[in-house]
Amino acid sequence: MDEKVEISTTILRRLPQYLRILNKAKENKVSSVSSTMLAEELKLNSILVRKDLALVSRNQGKPGVGFDVDELIEDIEKYINIKSIKNAIIIGAGRLGQALLNYYGFEPNMNIVMAFDTNKKVCDNKRIFYIDQLEEKVKKNNIDIAIITVPKEEAQAVTEEVVNCGIKAIWNFAPANLKVPEGTLIKNEDLSTSLLILLKKIEDNEN
Amino acid sequence: MDEKVEISTTILRRLPQYLRILNKAKENKVSSVSSTMLAEELKLNSILVRKDLALVSRNQGKPGVGFDVDELIEDIEKYINIKSIKNAIIIGAGRLGQALLNYYGFEPNMNIVMAFDTNKKVCDNKRIFYIDQLEEKVKKNNIDIAIITVPKEEAQAVTEEVVNCGIKAIWNFAPANLKVPEGTLIKNEDLSTSLLILLKKIEDNEN
Repeated sequence: MDEKVEISTTILRRLPQYLRILNKAKENKVSSVSSTMLAEELKLNSILVRKDLALVSRNQGKPGVGFDVDELIEDIEKYINIKSIKNAIIIGAGRLGQALLNYYGFEPNMNIVMAFDTNKKVCDNKRIFYIDQLEEKVKKNNIDIAIITVPKEEAQAVTEEVVNCGIKAIWNFAPANLKVPEGTLIKNEDLSTSLLILLKKIEDNEN
Repeated sequence: MDEKVEISTTILRRLPQYLRILNKAKENKVSSVSSTMLAEELKLNSILVRKDLALVSRNQGKPGVGFDVDELIEDIEKYINIKSIKNAIIIGAGRLGQALLNYYGFEPNMNIVMAFDTNKKVCDNKRIFYIDQLEEKVKKNNIDIAIITVPKEEAQAVTEEVVNCGIKAIWNFAPANLKVPEGTLIKNEDLSTSLLILLKKIEDNEN
């Protein structure tokens, strides 16, 4: 895995966390915060926090005073700003697929336009369509992202279908190691593995 | 963050991926695999794969032959084996909460027993209950885990409620930095941040 991509991904994961704390500080009329305070709130190493902020922020914070809250919010928002809105489809309109289809928390960065399924009973021909309309609808609706929420056995086959339709980015919720051609982006969201990590920690705690 | 915990978490995230490839190899009647092959399939560094396998496996693989597939499957399954079944509740029976309540992919390791909500209209008193029954039901049903699927504004308050009921592990789907007392485990599942990472990569690819 490319080291540079890996680093920027972990930083990207922390930036929204800084933003939440900064916005709360702003609400409470706090005008400056230190990297130490941010580190403590998030249980992170303060050197790491300082490095992150050095990367995204115009100034390095005043010694003994810290970072200006408004300025830091602006810098982080600029850094994580997504410039264009992407259109997405969902493949697999089961429980998880329908929940995501009806979840508006991803706006304004991503619009989930429609979903596809192989079960005609769930297809309403309004927002859920039978899978044989995939290619036509993808081309007509300028789709960038496919969200995969099918059972793991079907995941590779539907991935190949969406790649064949020209989609270059996949957000995969199926517990499967999908193979995609060079140049296709994939982001895995493996809830079973997340749960495994939590359960292992619970058992370690009990011992 | 404790360095040791962090390392074991990242390994835990890779072990199910090795298992999937090994099980597929077994289906195809392949009897041994090399760490190099596993590394290539998963786009990981092969030294990292060898380190992971040295940690969980009885033997180190034969030079030029590799690891016995059956033995390695057994060793990994033993390593990630969860010894006891945990009971969970969902706080927030909105779209995501109801999807998780009706998703059986977490069994047999975790049973989602019931959900709670502040909206009486969604409470069926079978599997979804009004929030004022939380404490009574948690005590009666021996609940270990609370899955938080409320809006971010409500997340901290409901977290404090479940902690007060004696729950020691939280799986948080709300985009909020929850504060929990020492000894309470928390696993964050932040879909918005995951999406942000995917969208940033798409923009990098376009440039």
